[in-house]
Amino acid sequence: MRYAYLGPQGTFTEAALRSLPDAAGAEHLPYATVPAALDALRRDDVDAAVVALENSVEGSVPTTLDELAMGDPLQIVSEIHLPVSFALLVRPGTDFGDIKTVASHPHAQPQCRRWLAEHIPDAEWRAATSNAEAAQHVADGHYDAALAGSFAAARYGLGILAEDIHDVADAVTRFVELRRPCAPPAPTGTDRTTVAAFIGEDHPGALLEILNEFAMRGINLTLIQSRPTGAGLGSYLFWMDFEGHVEDARVGEALMGLRRVVADVRFLGSYCRADQIRPEIRRGTHDADFTEAAAWLTAIRQGHPEP
Amino acid sequence: MRYAYLGPQGTFTEAALRSLPDAAGAEHLPYATVPAALDALRRDDVDAAVVALENSVEGSVPTTLDELAMGDPLQIVSEIHLPVSFALLVRPGTDFGDIKTVASHPHAQPQCRRWLAEHIPDAEWRAATSNAEAAQHVADGHYDAALAGSFAAARYGLGILAEDIHDVADAVTRFVELRRPCAPPAPTGTDRTTVAAFIGEDHPGALLEILNEFAMRGINLTLIQSRPTGAGLGSYLFWMDFEGHVEDARVGEALMGLRRVVADVRFLGSYCRADQIRPEIRRGTHDADFTEAAAWLTAIRQGHPEP
Amino acid sequence: MRYAYLGPQGTFTEAALRSLPDAAGAEHLPYATVPAALDALRRDDVDAAVVALENSVEGSVPTTLDELAMGDPLQIVSEIHLPVSFALLVRPGTDFGDIKTVASHPHAQPQCRRWLAEHIPDAEWRAATSNAEAAQHVADGHYDAALAGSFAAARYGLGILAEDIHDVADAVTRFVELRRPCAPPAPTGTDRTTVAAFIGEDHPGALLEILNEFAMRGINLTLIQSRPTGAGLGSYLFWMDFEGHVEDARVGEALMGLRRVVADVRFLGSYCRADQIRPEIRRGTHDADFTEAAAWLTAIRQGHPEP
Amino acid sequence: MRYAYLGPQGTFTEAALRSLPDAAGAEHLPYATVPAALDALRRDDVDAAVVALENSVEGSVPTTLDELAMGDPLQIVSEIHLPVSFALLVRPGTDFGDIKTVASHPHAQPQCRRWLAEHIPDAEWRAATSNAEAAQHVADGHYDAALAGSFAAARYGLGILAEDIHDVADAVTRFVELRRPCAPPAPTGTDRTTVAAFIGEDHPGALLEILNEFAMRGINLTLIQSRPTGAGLGSYLFWMDFEGHVEDARVGEALMGLRRVVADVRFLGSYCRADQIRPEIRRGTHDADFTEAAAWLTAIRQGHPEP
Repeated sequence: MRYAYLGPQGTFTEAALRSLPDAAGAEHLPYATVPAALDALRRDDVDAAVVALENSVEGSVPTTLDELAMGDPLQIVSEIHLPVSFALLVRPGTDFGDIKTVASHPHAQPQCRRWLAEHIPDAEWRAATSNAEAAQHVADGHYDAALAGSFAAARYGLGILAEDIHDVADAVTRFVELRRPCAPPAPTGTDRTTVAAFIGEDHPGALLEILNEFAMRGINLTLIQSRPTGAGLGSYLFWMDFEGHVEDARVGEALMGLRRVVADVRFLGSYCRADQIRPEIRRGTHDADFTEAAAWLTAIRQGHPEP
Repeated sequence: MRYAYLGPQGTFTEAALRSLPDAAGAEHLPYATVPAALDALRRDDVDAAVVALENSVEGSVPTTLDELAMGDPLQIVSEIHLPVSFALLVRPGTDFGDIKTVASHPHAQPQCRRWLAEHIPDAEWRAATSNAEAAQHVADGHYDAALAGSFAAARYGLGILAEDIHDVADAVTRFVELRRPCAPPAPTGTDRTTVAAFIGEDHPGALLEILNEFAMRGINLTLIQSRPTGAGLGSYLFWMDFEGHVEDARVGEALMGLRRVVADVRFLGSYCRADQIRPEIRRGTHDADFTEAAAWLTAIRQGHPEP
Repeated sequence: MRYAYLGPQGTFTEAALRSLPDAAGAEHLPYATVPAALDALRRDDVDAAVVALENSVEGSVPTTLDELAMGDPLQIVSEIHLPVSFALLVRPGTDFGDIKTVASHPHAQPQCRRWLAEHIPDAEWRAATSNAEAAQHVADGHYDAALAGSFAAARYGLGILAEDIHDVADAVTRFVELRRPCAPPAPTGTDRTTVAAFIGEDHPGALLEILNEFAMRGINLTLIQSRPTGAGLGSYLFWMDFEGHVEDARVGEALMGLRRVVADVRFLGSYCRADQIRPEIRRGTHDADFTEAAAWLTAIRQGHPEP
Repeated sequence: MRYAYLGPQGTFTEAALRSLPDAAGAEHLPYATVPAALDALRRDDVDAAVVALENSVEGSVPTTLDELAMGDPLQIVSEIHLPVSFALLVRPGTDFGDIKTVASHPHAQPQCRRWLAEHIPDAEWRAATSNAEAAQHVADGHYDAALAGSFAAARYGLGILAEDIHDVADAVTRFVELRRPCAPPAPTGTDRTTVAAFIGEDHPGALLEILNEFAMRGINLTLIQSRPTGAGLGSYLFWMDFEGHVEDARVGEALMGLRRVVADVRFLGSYCRADQIRPEIRRGTHDADFTEAAAWLTAIRQGHPEP
């Protein structure tokens, strides 16, 4: 097995990848950007890729959403939740008073803004393409400190000046494992399904109609995110995560409804939820209810009297 | 072929029956009440029955709705629309000034109320179990005049004192032809489907949920009528007529949705509309759309990449 | 006080009227038909009228619904629920074996059909304009027996051959007290409101839109009944009873929504429910919620910062 | 007048600010970050601020949405649409072959990815906190080229090596002008209103209920964007832009409905649309319809008969 991830070594994405059961004996290949990691998977250079999808403080990762919704098709096969907690990494010997610049990925800065203002108010923040790159720049002497995962310290020969840095308690980042399009993993009872729906014309009730397809079948949405399609202000696609598995009858019918209603819909995977929350299935929407209703419909179409 | 109808001879129901293509060489058997006619069909004494379902002035016929929704199952296979127009039937020699009593079925009276007030204001109205029975009572000398179809005059040896009597122009009565449960007639493109839905618990959104199953698939309701189930004030069933045929994919899916949502639903037939109105089929709800969506669902469940 | 009711003396309607607190010292005037009783009220000949509205077995009373929805405006100010139970009234000396004909209002017959089939299977049923009129006809010798309230026996000098006759246990008839249009009685917390809504064009979502106005504000419908407007098959009005009082903010806003959505709506009264059921008021729909929201809207329109 | 904007000088935001009618004689103060510009406005250091809200390619600007939805209240009073088009700025004498590094704000890079891959495939991209800062770094000699507005060239003494760079034609960025909370500008007929709605509990129909408040009154949403509230994955607020002005009756009632339904809602302004699109107002939702309905409600509450 070969895994692509958003590198360099020492990123949170690498930590997420390491938490996968299959990652143990596998090869881990860092890529400079999310599109680069996904293109490697599309080209068959690797067997899977791990990228960040959303963060409970910073929100969804636009590049990931757009690549998955609009790039060549890939499919989510599992998800990983990783608590967000930063360390302040410095060259050995550096102390708080010495820090003039602190670097990180732009996502890290707002999650530590208050901590930074309190502990190193005079330090200037600098953008890096990843937290690990920020650590590399500290090791290189370009910057004085980096916000990164504590696991990055050893890799770059840096010391940890402070740990467990975060403005918001219990912040979590959600990562997804991607494969080339494939049959989804078997239902577990605690599944999530992801789609991207493209609304064709700009009509008032479009989103309402979509949500209705889910609500009518008692399917809870866990994330809805609009993204521009690039065709002008006002032209959106909707990224939607919801409870259930494509093999569930209620999910299958909702997806067919969606397919009929919108201009286009892309299936992005059914997979086990990292939080293992089991959905409440509403009366009349169990698989057995759909089976019974289909049998009844066949009977009345054929003119068999009711039992 | 043997047909049951609400008798005696000379009723509007008999006139409706005579308009059926298959009625020409068939035997026509009058029954005293709607339940009696339907029971004859259930017992196999006849092959079909014709009864009134609704009238554009007086509304639906409760006995018919209740018998079909709650009695042993029967099925609507065709419908007949008959313009409503009464004649004032009298014994030969009777003139307006001689009329002290005028009899009719209770449904006829309100449709001629204004005409009666204008032309024979002093005559007392008397209830009969059918207009034809009223004519019979006039022939017998019990009453002076009857409101009935003009075709009843010859049968009872009466004269027509006035014709084309009705307070409301273009009033129509809708009759249905019933059979024992059977495969519905083939779709014609101008079909109507009838069901009776029993709502289990009294919850605020029950009816809304039902209507949503139709609205979401662009299916127009042409009649919705609540009837008590007999289980107390507030316990209702809904009689629903709507556009389309049970063989249509959108109707099939709506019916399965209904089946899953409500306590019980009875299919009462798909048949050609008498008014031959062709429904507008909304984008995304043609049979082909359902077929395409089902094929797509199968493909993503099996992991085939999108074409 | 002068009360009109559907006579003659001895009807269930008279019994309902007698149960009203204000009826004790009042004058009770019987009228031959529901329209006659209501016209007397419209003409100011009486101060109030009592008529039947619906029955838990037979359903709504079409004449009452149509008169109130389409005749000159009147208003419901209270309702009465009366258990339905018939007695078999005969001339003294008559026994079961002597009964060849049994008369009643057409509504009574189906409620006793099974009992009649079991106890006097050979008797023919005859329609009367009221149960009390049927009793009168028995006293006159026209018919052998009448189905009527046991209270009618004394009034017509008849004996009671059987009592407590009904096919369905716990059957109830709902009567309403009507006045000329007036300010509704004060809210009691267990109120019901009645309207008639006329849908203009025949569009698929019309009824759904109406129901939505209620559902969105957590207002339960207790009765919905379609009636033809007389303008042809497919043209309906909807009679709707629902929880709450016109003075309730949620009801007021729903009514305004209805008014804006439909071709026409007639307010038919807010009044205390006979069953005294207290509605569950959904979060966000108490009067205080509306008051708070209106204050907030005023503040943001005027540019006052949020507190 | 003093305006804050996301600096340094030469950003697209400054260009947007310069397009405002009132900006001509005003003082323009650059700030290093969006929060810094908004805090200056909150502290009364400036009278207004201009920041980017969304881009037709890159989507909404998370920092702006979060600051406006969750920071101390500010209000949108106007919007500016600016076509997106980059120039490649270099030090005089630099040619395509000399470019080893190209810097820009992270938002600019994906909008020029294809162009970069085609014209300077070997150049490495570097993140800057703004495009103007990237230009500054080029002037300083840190990087070889910057993607920025062509207007930035003169300010930093740079040359324009290529112009009109963008992967997607007709890309537009939407900026907003902010003030401290105030009475909204008067309606123009082509207005937009913005709110942030916080959904309290995670229940399936929450978003559907919100959308219903708008759909029922024929109000079109032009943007809906979920953002995490920071309280954990699955806890979101919804940023919503929609047609109409808070002074419109239909908008006022929808906002009150929203206020009652959700845990919290923040009004963020009503202002003239930059694209001047005039909404279609649905039958029954004009101001006059609300006025008429309110008058009707008052009349029936007071017991005045219908006219």
